[in-house]
Amino acid sequence: MIKIAIDAMGADNGVYPIVEGVREALKNKDFFAYLVGDSEQISEALKQNKSSRIEIVHCQDFIRMEEQASAAAKRKESSIYVAMEMCKEKKADALISAGHSGATMSLATLRLGRINGVSRPAICTMMPTISERPSLVLDVGANTDCKPEFLVDFALMGYEYAKSVLGYPNPRVGLLSNGEEDTKGNELVKETFKILKDYDFFKGNVEGNDIFNASVDVVVCDGYTGNIALKVSEGVASSVSYLLKKEIKKSYFSMLMASLLKGAFSSLKQKMDYAEYGGAPLLGINGNVIISHGKSNARAIECAIYQAIRTIESDVSNKIQNAMKKRLS
Amino acid sequence: MIKIAIDAMGADNGVYPIVEGVREALKNKDFFAYLVGDSEQISEALKQNKSSRIEIVHCQDFIRMEEQASAAAKRKESSIYVAMEMCKEKKADALISAGHSGATMSLATLRLGRINGVSRPAICTMMPTISERPSLVLDVGANTDCKPEFLVDFALMGYEYAKSVLGYPNPRVGLLSNGEEDTKGNELVKETFKILKDYDFFKGNVEGNDIFNASVDVVVCDGYTGNIALKVSEGVASSVSYLLKKEIKKSYFSMLMASLLKGAFSSLKQKMDYAEYGGAPLLGINGNVIISHGKSNARAIECAIYQAIRTIESDVSNKIQNAMKKRLS
Repeated sequence: MIKIAIDAMGADNGVYPIVEGVREALKNKDFFAYLVGDSEQISEALKQNKSSRIEIVHCQDFIRMEEQASAAAKRKESSIYVAMEMCKEKKADALISAGHSGATMSLATLRLGRINGVSRPAICTMMPTISERPSLVLDVGANTDCKPEFLVDFALMGYEYAKSVLGYPNPRVGLLSNGEEDTKGNELVKETFKILKDYDFFKGNVEGNDIFNASVDVVVCDGYTGNIALKVSEGVASSVSYLLKKEIKKSYFSMLMASLLKGAFSSLKQKMDYAEYGGAPLLGINGNVIISHGKSNARAIECAIYQAIRTIESDVSNKIQNAMKKRLS
Repeated sequence: MIKIAIDAMGADNGVYPIVEGVREALKNKDFFAYLVGDSEQISEALKQNKSSRIEIVHCQDFIRMEEQASAAAKRKESSIYVAMEMCKEKKADALISAGHSGATMSLATLRLGRINGVSRPAICTMMPTISERPSLVLDVGANTDCKPEFLVDFALMGYEYAKSVLGYPNPRVGLLSNGEEDTKGNELVKETFKILKDYDFFKGNVEGNDIFNASVDVVVCDGYTGNIALKVSEGVASSVSYLLKKEIKKSYFSMLMASLLKGAFSSLKQKMDYAEYGGAPLLGINGNVIISHGKSNARAIECAIYQAIRTIESDVSNKIQNAMKKRLS
């Protein structure tokens, strides 16, 4: 049976949404969950409903959001450290954390190690598009300053993830730039373009709006830019929703009409909701690590678990390893 | 009377929207318009309706979107070159162009010159927020690779523009980063933070979503990142609208309900519509230059004219000059 270590600590809304998400996922999928963290808090959240497929792994310590990521390496009693060791020792097949993402990332690199040939691991996120298929954007935060070879690795890893985990037949990869022309971009993009143009999957430079119009499947950028793109898209979606609600609330009539349109609004909301996309896999390490949003609700954790299962079953880590070997040879 | 030189050439939809926008603006504001470009095309678009406050300035040449920006410097017969010279010789108080933005920018720097003390001019764009006041983002494309001192200049110029042209009493300036903490950012952001923290108007690092939630008035970033932020926000807004329409079209009932909500939708649309925000001023040069979207419709050109008038009347160019002098002394 698939075994998943879930860091129950350090998320913005405490252990409850984590525990609830695990419980929901257990109803639909056959896996074993290690809930790693403060046993008292976890037991309290579980109440009487403890499944036989849940085991609590007690830890007294955890990394708080405001702490430095580098602190994690020395905190061997922290929930994320303990969960990472379970992955390293193959007691768990995957790890999910909605806690300190920097700590998760640095511990994953340190304890599980990078895949041979990968210059830097990258956080890969899924974004809604106007088509049925979400697009992938990487890196969205692991590496704020990049070299061209990092971005080339991101392109290869994103391609493998789109193919193996998402099942896209021939993933198309684009390089995020300030214009579609080959000559556009900052120095990093221009240098990366020169290398990527020799790969068949590479479709050239793409612009910010191309993330959402399904013109490519994978969008590659440095982690600083990826984080900005992610947060801008969250910001626009939430302000559109806020402004529309405000307009509608101006009259009882429009409130009534809007309530009759509930179906359309909620299916749009579902499509735009980060929770439905689970978490962001950390690609390029020897293991399966999913980084969830600090604000994750139960549904987001549930989806992150499904994503972890798909990631394990598709063996993407090995596929990235093979892709890297092939390139190196 | 205020005189504005309008480059009628090189926009995506030809001269018609430009001419139409000028005509609409003339109904509401007292100014004189020089329409610079092919006299035959402009006359055709004007038909019988030529106002006494319009003069056509004929040019045979113009810079096409696919040409290199550097070509503009040698094309003295091109519409943008001629319009720029009119600004230089004070025949016109401001210039508006929806043509090749790189050409406009490089010619403005070359022919009008940078304000003393400004390291690089920046394109400054207005973005909708959940409050009544739009926020300013700069740079959105002029400078793809920046040094910390460029970003500090952008902060100063954005502050002056928000104060003088938009009338914001105490503009708050934020630095775009991948986290709010002082330590977040790529190398450029971290170095810029160290300098900006000594300015009273500086409110620290902000994230992508802060552009829309009115937590600051001015958001500073390099031109590559600013362009990505701009295009991502356009992409999200248009895909939300596309997806909602698609959902609504699934049934006649919801189509009917939605049509009864038309008022709410159109006032949201107006708020999110780039056309309402006119164009993007090029800050840091000796003159008033407004860069409009290549896809500008007549309303966008009309609003760009109002913005040009506000920019002239507020004397922002001189105010930036004074701010720079003050800093240098």
